[in-house]
Amino acid sequence: MNAQPIRDADPSLLREDRDGVSILTLNRPAARNALSETLIGELSHSLDRIAEDRSIKAVVLAAGGPVFSAGHDLKEMTARRRDADRGRAYFVDVLARCSAMMQRIVRLPQPVIAAVEGVATAAGCQLVASCDLAVAGEEARFCTPGVNIGLFCSTPMVALSRNLSRKHAMEMLLLGEMLPAGEAARMGLVNRVVPAGDALAEAMRLAAIIASKSALTVRIGKKAFYEQAEMPLADAYDHASRVMAENMLARDAEEGIGAVLEKRQPVWTGE
Amino acid sequence: MNAQPIRDADPSLLREDRDGVSILTLNRPAARNALSETLIGELSHSLDRIAEDRSIKAVVLAAGGPVFSAGHDLKEMTARRRDADRGRAYFVDVLARCSAMMQRIVRLPQPVIAAVEGVATAAGCQLVASCDLAVAGEEARFCTPGVNIGLFCSTPMVALSRNLSRKHAMEMLLLGEMLPAGEAARMGLVNRVVPAGDALAEAMRLAAIIASKSALTVRIGKKAFYEQAEMPLADAYDHASRVMAENMLARDAEEGIGAVLEKRQPVWTGE
Amino acid sequence: MNAQPIRDADPSLLREDRDGVSILTLNRPAARNALSETLIGELSHSLDRIAEDRSIKAVVLAAGGPVFSAGHDLKEMTARRRDADRGRAYFVDVLARCSAMMQRIVRLPQPVIAAVEGVATAAGCQLVASCDLAVAGEEARFCTPGVNIGLFCSTPMVALSRNLSRKHAMEMLLLGEMLPAGEAARMGLVNRVVPAGDALAEAMRLAAIIASKSALTVRIGKKAFYEQAEMPLADAYDHASRVMAENMLARDAEEGIGAVLEKRQPVWTGE
Repeated sequence: MNAQPIRDADPSLLREDRDGVSILTLNRPAARNALSETLIGELSHSLDRIAEDRSIKAVVLAAGGPVFSAGHDLKEMTARRRDADRGRAYFVDVLARCSAMMQRIVRLPQPVIAAVEGVATAAGCQLVASCDLAVAGEEARFCTPGVNIGLFCSTPMVALSRNLSRKHAMEMLLLGEMLPAGEAARMGLVNRVVPAGDALAEAMRLAAIIASKSALTVRIGKKAFYEQAEMPLADAYDHASRVMAENMLARDAEEGIGAVLEKRQPVWTGE
Repeated sequence: MNAQPIRDADPSLLREDRDGVSILTLNRPAARNALSETLIGELSHSLDRIAEDRSIKAVVLAAGGPVFSAGHDLKEMTARRRDADRGRAYFVDVLARCSAMMQRIVRLPQPVIAAVEGVATAAGCQLVASCDLAVAGEEARFCTPGVNIGLFCSTPMVALSRNLSRKHAMEMLLLGEMLPAGEAARMGLVNRVVPAGDALAEAMRLAAIIASKSALTVRIGKKAFYEQAEMPLADAYDHASRVMAENMLARDAEEGIGAVLEKRQPVWTGE
Repeated sequence: MNAQPIRDADPSLLREDRDGVSILTLNRPAARNALSETLIGELSHSLDRIAEDRSIKAVVLAAGGPVFSAGHDLKEMTARRRDADRGRAYFVDVLARCSAMMQRIVRLPQPVIAAVEGVATAAGCQLVASCDLAVAGEEARFCTPGVNIGLFCSTPMVALSRNLSRKHAMEMLLLGEMLPAGEAARMGLVNRVVPAGDALAEAMRLAAIIASKSALTVRIGKKAFYEQAEMPLADAYDHASRVMAENMLARDAEEGIGAVLEKRQPVWTGE
């Protein structure tokens, strides 16, 4: 790998592009990849740049060091208790920016695949839940431990409860215990479990599959997926029908369907 | 079986009624039971007739030949690219009619049980997801492969995402890979897996159980189920409470509760 | 145990408080713990009192005798068919009061854990689905059998369909068959299955874990969980971010985060 820091001054996030796949690597291993203000900012910035980069077909979100991400940076947050307002304005702001970053993943045109080794806790677990797909090494573990420190994982639960059934989500949130990778797969938080150390390779394999498709088609579909998910059935069908009719008129659909009928490989132009 | 074509001219759908159960069989095996305009029309027509047929208590949706259904008829759709508008009006129309047909299954007073052998892809997979229950033979497979041909399975995902958790649905939609029956059961797309070739028999067994209940009660319950599913909790309870109080006043509820208290078999009148 | 009747005249519900956990025990074993008007009233009354009792950190809902709860009291309901309106006003009223009681569980500040041995049917199954967590003994079984007596389980399905995937919920509702504990766990209706007879002990173990947390934090989190579950994603994040920023300012969050940073045990004040 030849990963590059996003900004020279503080390489808390690395980006490496490989065959149309952008690998974002959380790079604060000494701080357990806590989502500091800087890291939230760099993730946001990188996602915004990737959103406009037509050469990127999929994103893999990985982490350096033994911890995937420990969530918010408690030291950084605690320091602001000395503000005149005891940190209120800061807390509101940093949680809003973190929530906006999580939603950037959902709204990103390209699919995002989490590659999880080690522990993903609190907002780190939320990162995994916010991705479109997730792969876990078999020693990965997941936790929403806010309840153990007096700060309920309220923003993580937004993503978590849109992945897990209610009782499973409540179990994680109320008990604050570590969930092994196998349980996380059973509950729907991750798509698959691979041998420890293989999560990145498997995520790259899935990313390569996605990168081999028409980027336009993937972009249309991902956007429509999250839009229709929040609609009543009849509205969802109206919306999806319109989206699909437009998709039929795209050059890539004409090429892809033509290729099937002619039993040949399609060549995508992304249009 | 003594299945009858719906219309003489084009038996793309067969209907056979047996002991209060209507078996609809997709009958375009040479075309992999693709949902042509004609087949969508015949399914719609048959569902409308069954909706008004009080002798029918449940519907089983099956398919002839090795493929359950390959989804939309790509040849038929492609032919319309020669229209003056490149097919736009046609695509909008056929997708709207297909979506309306899928919603007819949801709104049908009688429960619909899919009996799946072979492969159910794209709108064929959507058919299964749209049914109230589904049984799969152990060699059945499920796929939303639109992404492979440049045409994302946007309307299938409406039904799919109301059955599967988000990451499971996204996995099917983004990778476009075949899902074995066992995985489909684990993810909630089908209720149960039976030995290959036994799906129809098992679906008929479930249909017979449903047909032995009060048809009025089943109709009340199925309707309320999909209505309340789209409501906030408090509204859902208000609605369901009113529905259930009315149900209590029906003759079948008086009969059924009386039978329990008197330890005898109920006799349903459907009123 | 030294459980106390809620009211002297009719001990259809017992309450015992132990180490910050309130154990509510359905106590109509001879009537299969049917949810009579009186029992619905006593559950409502007890939940209202617990809601205001800061000494209680969690609630365990258990049952005496071999049946967890058989749901509504059919004898009591049937008797009202002799009313001038054939019972209509009564049915509307009792279902509204039962639905309000179920929602009291959801809105209760403290988490509620069902401890299920034996059979939980109809509104008894709804009770389990309405709890935040549920533990089942391995011989426990679950059923929504209304369809067998002409009275669809329409109010139970409100809770059931918010726990199970659609096809699983429909299977229970349309077939009216007994679901073994293991299946209930697989489908998400209960969190875990323990050896027969151990459900109460395991529920108490989970309750003790929850009782060891900051009650304020748990209260904030449970409330926000059900609120955000009904919102679109962006609204859910706005709400949860505000909730979490306020939570940060609470004394328990300052204490808990301080304890982590100082590597010591936190001492909760519930403020």
